[in-house]
This record gives sequence, structure tokens and C-alpha cells, in this order.
Amino acid sequence: MSEQYLATIDLGSNSFHMVIARYHGDSLRIVDRLKERVRLADGLDEHRRLNEAAMSRGLACLQLFGERLRGFKAAQVRVAGTFTLREAINAPSFVQQAQKALGFPIDIISGNEEARLIYQGVAHTQNTRGKVLVVDIGGGSTELIIGEGFDCQLVTSRSMGCVSFTSTYFSDDELSEQGFERAIAATEYLLAPVVGRYLRLGWDQVLGSSGTIKSLLDICESVTGEQGISLAGLLHIKARLIQANRIENIELAGLSDDRKPLLAAGLAILLGLFRSLNLDRMGFSDGALREGLLHSFVGRAGHHDTQANTIQALSQEYVIDTEQAQRVKNTALALLAQVRDAWQLDDSYARLLGWAAQLHEVGLHINFSAIHRHSAYILSNADLPGFTQEQQKALAALVRFHRKALKLGELAPLNYLPEVQLLRLIRLLRLAVALNRRRQDNVLPELEIEPVDELVRLRLPAGWCDKNQLLMTTLEREQDYQAKVNWPLELLRL
Amino acid sequence: MSEQYLATIDLGSNSFHMVIARYHGDSLRIVDRLKERVRLADGLDEHRRLNEAAMSRGLACLQLFGERLRGFKAAQVRVAGTFTLREAINAPSFVQQAQKALGFPIDIISGNEEARLIYQGVAHTQNTRGKVLVVDIGGGSTELIIGEGFDCQLVTSRSMGCVSFTSTYFSDDELSEQGFERAIAATEYLLAPVVGRYLRLGWDQVLGSSGTIKSLLDICESVTGEQGISLAGLLHIKARLIQANRIENIELAGLSDDRKPLLAAGLAILLGLFRSLNLDRMGFSDGALREGLLHSFVGRAGHHDTQANTIQALSQEYVIDTEQAQRVKNTALALLAQVRDAWQLDDSYARLLGWAAQLHEVGLHINFSAIHRHSAYILSNADLPGFTQEQQKALAALVRFHRKALKLGELAPLNYLPEVQLLRLIRLLRLAVALNRRRQDNVLPELEIEPVDELVRLRLPAGWCDKNQLLMTTLEREQDYQAKVNWPLELLRL
Repeated sequence: MSEQYLATIDLGSNSFHMVIARYHGDSLRIVDRLKERVRLADGLDEHRRLNEAAMSRGLACLQLFGERLRGFKAAQVRVAGTFTLREAINAPSFVQQAQKALGFPIDIISGNEEARLIYQGVAHTQNTRGKVLVVDIGGGSTELIIGEGFDCQLVTSRSMGCVSFTSTYFSDDELSEQGFERAIAATEYLLAPVVGRYLRLGWDQVLGSSGTIKSLLDICESVTGEQGISLAGLLHIKARLIQANRIENIELAGLSDDRKPLLAAGLAILLGLFRSLNLDRMGFSDGALREGLLHSFVGRAGHHDTQANTIQALSQEYVIDTEQAQRVKNTALALLAQVRDAWQLDDSYARLLGWAAQLHEVGLHINFSAIHRHSAYILSNADLPGFTQEQQKALAALVRFHRKALKLGELAPLNYLPEVQLLRLIRLLRLAVALNRRRQDNVLPELEIEPVDELVRLRLPAGWCDKNQLLMTTLEREQDYQAKVNWPLELLRL
Repeated sequence: MSEQYLATIDLGSNSFHMVIARYHGDSLRIVDRLKERVRLADGLDEHRRLNEAAMSRGLACLQLFGERLRGFKAAQVRVAGTFTLREAINAPSFVQQAQKALGFPIDIISGNEEARLIYQGVAHTQNTRGKVLVVDIGGGSTELIIGEGFDCQLVTSRSMGCVSFTSTYFSDDELSEQGFERAIAATEYLLAPVVGRYLRLGWDQVLGSSGTIKSLLDICESVTGEQGISLAGLLHIKARLIQANRIENIELAGLSDDRKPLLAAGLAILLGLFRSLNLDRMGFSDGALREGLLHSFVGRAGHHDTQANTIQALSQEYVIDTEQAQRVKNTALALLAQVRDAWQLDDSYARLLGWAAQLHEVGLHINFSAIHRHSAYILSNADLPGFTQEQQKALAALVRFHRKALKLGELAPLNYLPEVQLLRLIRLLRLAVALNRRRQDNVLPELEIEPVDELVRLRLPAGWCDKNQLLMTTLEREQDYQAKVNWPLELLRL
């Protein structure tokens, strides 16, 4: 299997999609697409638990996708879970089984991250002009983005989708004027807090993406004989649906049977969007989340390093002492380099540690006292473009434990990052922070560190130890902190 | 009793102090001072519980102070609890009894607030020149401030004081070289994270305040024959103490018996400070926390409105939409004005509600999603100059519940602000936020609100209701949220 191939999978609330692409010079060409209607969101009960049936449908689909990916390496595959997996409290257990069935790791991404990836999917698929408003109606959430070229300028993800709206507003299969009005009003209600920002920024072009909007486009075009979606066309479809009265009676040219149950909810959301944003027409783009994921492969290697941009933006917004952050990063990575084989910390761990070092003092913006907790709070809750939820959780955990007592009971479990590796990164970060307590350059000697299983041996020149009593005291306290959780740390004077 | 008199009380970890002052034209003249050695910090056990003996000593002292204050009104008295009351987990129950004994409310202030008040006490007591470094060693914490004129530029409070250091480093009454070295190293260790900022900002003059430093000053002057504290003098005292070998053997000119037990710890902390900051000499100021509190009476009425400055600084640092904040504040205060008598919400509540309105969106800096939680987190943890801990907690509680479900189980208990009033403020803030959902001026009609016990009746013109469906939906949802916690809200169309 040549490594020229790449694959991305979008675990949507309604369908799972996979695309496979091949490098073609510097760009990518899509060579295969697979889609399964898994209806994951259908299986989410009122306690936010995914039921067995939905999980089985999902696993069966991923088994299938996994067969197509035989011979692919992990670095060639990227898998994103969206709304339903963000919501389900038992998502971690599903994700574990899903990874086994598929054979590749799965990332759950935030709503805003999803919005940004959708925008990239559209921007790389379509020739756009000026500022573009992109709208994507999924099974569980709807994303709204304004961007220009390849730059996202405004992103929002709201918890309203055609699956959840169907069960709330059209659960009895009846299509009434009242049901539509309630669903449209709910959409407007949910959009109200963000509409102002969109109207102020403005746009030159409007594009819809997603299967729901594609269905509405097809019907609209066959009804009006014009290209694209128009408000008049949508209102006409609404009238026809109310006339049909029940979902099973819907008869519309260009509508497949499996799209019928979700059509009314999708239409109501789109009408709510048209009303809130004063829209009249909308074009369509084939690009979506999975295409965005695909281009993130290229982006990460190329010019658009979203993650580096995010780190930089946070550093500015939270006025981080970047010199100190760099010192801690340099020390942490120097330490990691010496233990990477013994502790199995590959490049992805080094990246994680580097980010954590750069951001560990972000909480100082709130208060110096308990800074580590504030840093963790911010990194847990902020919108971090370019990072998956798993990476975000790992970063929060690292900065949470960068100093003070190791109350590891507070460590939230991660989905697939092994805890033993995470704890090792915590140890490296703490040592780097302790060693840089003086916040000055040229203080540290050549550092020699050696792991013997979980024992860490730090060798320091005796002369340096004598002249740096404060740092030695700091290291001894660190030794005490680590000893309390049975992490042996030896300080050897050479 | 004339209202020309003011009184402030400092509930220190070692002593309780009261000063009484009288307006003298535009300034204040101190007319009386009372001091009791209560040794509150002595009664703090390893589980951070204040024992009965210490509480009784405290209550007896406050009973005494209360007698002196008979006839004073609440607006003439200000009482601040410091380190030990910040630390003790049973402080709320002590404070309740203490308020009863004294007859006036007690505020527990943060370490940074304490530092700022100490600086004001010094600045108003002493003629200073240029930038002044002020150091105050208390029973439980040590404050470090750099200021110029009446402006604080840098404040720090560290958990090290002569009571706690005595029990950690000199508990067996023995005075050894080793004990001193450990206590001095601990001081340096605790100061290390902040020392750099102090050295960079620099100072022209160094002043100590507090009883501990006063004792050391007296001995130093009698030993060296020079004015002020010198490093040489302090080292001499240290040598003498080590020579004495045990606390009970200390014989030093100018040292009272009750100061003996804490002298070694105070000296070690001061030596650690001298070492960390490369000091050689230090002057002394009589001004301290209680004088700072006194001048905060004048400050609040006059030009220096620390609270307004804090609100403004937060608005800038966290990039708050101040127009929206102002709209919500206007609405909230307009509502409060109509219920103030029925709900017993005086000016202090109006101020609290106004501040909460100004800051309720501070959490947007972290994320729009769950903004109310982020706002509460920031206001709980940030350093808020001019606000007491009680006010800070109340603000955090108000913004926590400004939208979404009223999970009142998460409401942390306050010390003396009655919960029923706090809940009423939450209702007013929520209504103001809901009514301003459109984030535009000139949207709202004349608002008429009427409370019938806990029932709130909001009257709205029928024509306005018809034209503002979205706001009506928002108000109906708000009605549902409030109904779930048994807060009846009636929306009446006129």
C-alpha cells in the first residue's frame, strides 16, 4: 500500500462518511467515497446515553470502512467524531470499541473545530469570491462560518440538527404549520446571541453544505427551475409538506425515501437561518467536514499551521511571558530527548509537551495564586483551533499538574492516549518548570537524565548544586511531591 | 454619637487592632487605638480548623471592641479578617459569632487586597519619596508592595508569617543556626516566583510595617545605635539568639516578653527578604492595614474609586462588550428600583447588581459556550482590588446564574449576605439579560414589574409583545427556568 493515499472519516450524527484521496503533485485528488446512514443520534436517550443498537450500527459500519483501509498506516488516516459523540456520556466506551473495529484512532472534535474544518472543506472544493457565509446543517448541530479565501473569520456551532429537531418538533410524523413555526422560532432563538456578529461582519456569497441542504437544493431546483436555493422555493416546499400532512405522504421530485423523515426539520432550521440572517438565496458546495479533514493533512505540513497560530493567539490574548515559556519548552524537550526511547515518547508526545510548556502559565491572566488550576480551566474550556478534544484534554491535564501537589485523582481519563505516557510527560514538564524557577537564561548546566523504568535519575554537577541552593531546594521539594505518588526521582551530584 | 467618627478593625493572625478616627476637615485624625493579642493563628490545627480556645479569645476581644463602638452605625465601621480567617475552614461559623459579639459586619479580605490596604495605610501615614517598597510581616502572611504616591504598582501576599514559621521551624523553642537557615531558605523559596518582578520594577525607598518589624527595629536601633534596620543589625540579633539557644533565655534591650516567642521566625523571614531582594537597610512606617482601611472610607467617596477602576480594568483585560453590559445594567437597575422596598434591596444591593451586570460576560474571553460558568470562574479566582471576599463571592454567584438552568445546588453559601436577597438579585439580573437578548438599544418598552412576595409580575404592552416574538420566546423560557426552582414569574400583556 503506497503512502500516497490518505483517508478521512466523518462520524456524523446521521451518517458516517469516508473519503480516500491520493497525492497528485502538491494537491489531493479524491479517489473514493463511502457513506453509511448509521443514525447515531437516534440512539441518544434523554440521559445522553447511546443505546446498544446505535452503537452496533456504528461498529458495523466502521468494520466495513476498516476493511477498505487495510494496509494504511495511522499517519494516513484521520477520523473525527462530531455532535453525538461530543454529547454521549458513554462516548469513550463506544470510541474504544470503534477504534478496535476500524483499526485507527478516533478524535472527537469540538463544534468550533468542526465549523473550521467544514469551511476548509468548502474553501478547498469551491472557487469562492470575497467573504463567504457557509452553513452546514448536520444531524445534531449546525455550523455557521464566515471566511475569506482559506481564512476563517467567524465560527459558531449550535446544538440544533435535523435528527434532534425531528424528534422534538415532528416526532409524531405529523407536518403541521404549528410544528414548523415552533421549530423555526427555536432556530431563531438559538441563533439570536450570535446573529449580530454575523450581520456586522457581512458576506458577499452564501453557500450551504451537508446532505440535508443538498436534498433541499435538489427539490428546490426541480420546483423552481432555477439554480440554487431560494426563499420562495423553501416556502413552497414547506407548503407542500404541510399539505402532505404526514411524513409518509411526502411526494417530491428528487427526494429519496431515506431523506424523508428528516426533511421537515432540516427545512425548518434552514428557514430559521434565512429569517435570522435575512437571506434570500443560497448556493451549494460539495465540500464538507471530510474534505476539510483531508486538507488538514496538507495544511499541517505546509504553511497553514493552525496549531502554532492558536498557541500564538493564546499567548497574546492571555499575555504569556513567552521568554519563560520558551525556556521551559527547551528544557522539557531536552529532557524528553534523553528518555524518548526508554519511555516510548514519539514526536506526537514531544509536540504535546512543547505546547503544554508554551501554555502552562496561561492561567496567570486570572491569578498567580493557583495558576496551574486556572491554566487547566482555560485550556479545558477555550476554543483551540487545530486541536482535537483529546489533545485539548491532554494539554489541560499537563498544565494542571505543572506544579504543586500531584492530586492525580483529579486527572480526567482520556480516550486513547495511554495514561502512563501522559504521567511521564507530566514528570518532564514539572522538572522543566522547577529547573527554570529563576526565570533567567544561562542558569542551567548540561542536563543529564536517565530513566530506569519509572525511576528518574537527574545528574547535576556538584559545583553547580553548591552555587544554586534555591534551585536545589526547589528540586528537593519536587522530589517530595513526586515521592508522594510513588514516582522515584533521584538527584545525583556528580 | 456623631457620625464624624469612623472605626476600623484588623483581625490579624496574631493581634486584633482597632483604630478610631475623626474627620478633621477633609482628612482623618486618629483619636484612639486598641490592641489585643488574640493569637488566632495558634488555634489553627493541621486540618485548618480554628479551635474553641482561639475562637473564645477572639470573641472576648470583639465583645470589648464592641463596647467601645456602642452608638456607631454600620456605615461608620469597617472590619477586615486576614490570613487565619482566609485559611480556617470553619471561619464562617466564627465570623457569624464574631459579628454578633462585635455588633458589626466582618469582611474577609484576600491577600492582595490586604497588601493594597497596607500600602494605603503607609502612604497616608508617611511622606514617601519616589517608588516605595513596603514589607509587612504578619502572623500568617507577608505582604510585599511597590507603590508610588497613592498608587499601588505591584502587590504580593505569601503564606508565611511569624506564627506559622515559629511552629514549623522553632517549635521546640530551640534557636539553632540550622533552624534559621531552614526558615530563611523557605522564605527565599516562597519569594522566588515573584522576586524577578520586584527587582525589575525597582524602588527608591524601603519601609517595613507591622508589629514584628517594629520589634526588630527597636532591637536593631538599640544594638547598632543607628536609625532604622540594617542587615548588619539583623545578623547581630540572629547571632545573639543562637547564643541564647532557647527562646526563654532571650535577653535583648527593647524586647517585650510577649514578642519573644515569635521573634526568631520574624527575623528569619526578614533575613530571607533581605537576601532575596538584596536589601541592606529598611525604614519603618507606623501605617498598616487598619490605617489603610480607614482611608478606604474617604477613598470610596472621593476620587479613588478602586472598585470602579477594577471593573474597568477587567472590562479591558477581558474585552467585554461594554455597550451590552451597560444595557443590562440599566435594565437591571430599572427593575430593582421598582422592587427595592418590597424586596428590601438597599443601595449596597443595587451596587452589587450593577457590578454583576457590568461583568456578567467576562467569561466570553474563554468561550461563548458555558459563558456563565467561565464568568463565575474568573470572578471567583481573579484578584479584584477594592472588593471583599464576600462581595467577590456574591458577584461570582450572580454571574454564574445569569442564564441557563438554575442549578442552585451549586450556589456556595455566603457568610452574611442573606441568601434570599442574593436569589432576588439573580432573578433581576436574569430578567435584564433575557430582555436585552437582542443586544440593541431602544428595543425595550417602559418596564413595569411588581413583586407579590416571591411572585414577579412583568407587565408588557400587547403591541410590543406581538412585534417582539423572539424576546417573548426568551421570556417564556426564562419563565420555565424560574418555575423549575419555584420562582413564579408572570408575563402580563397589557
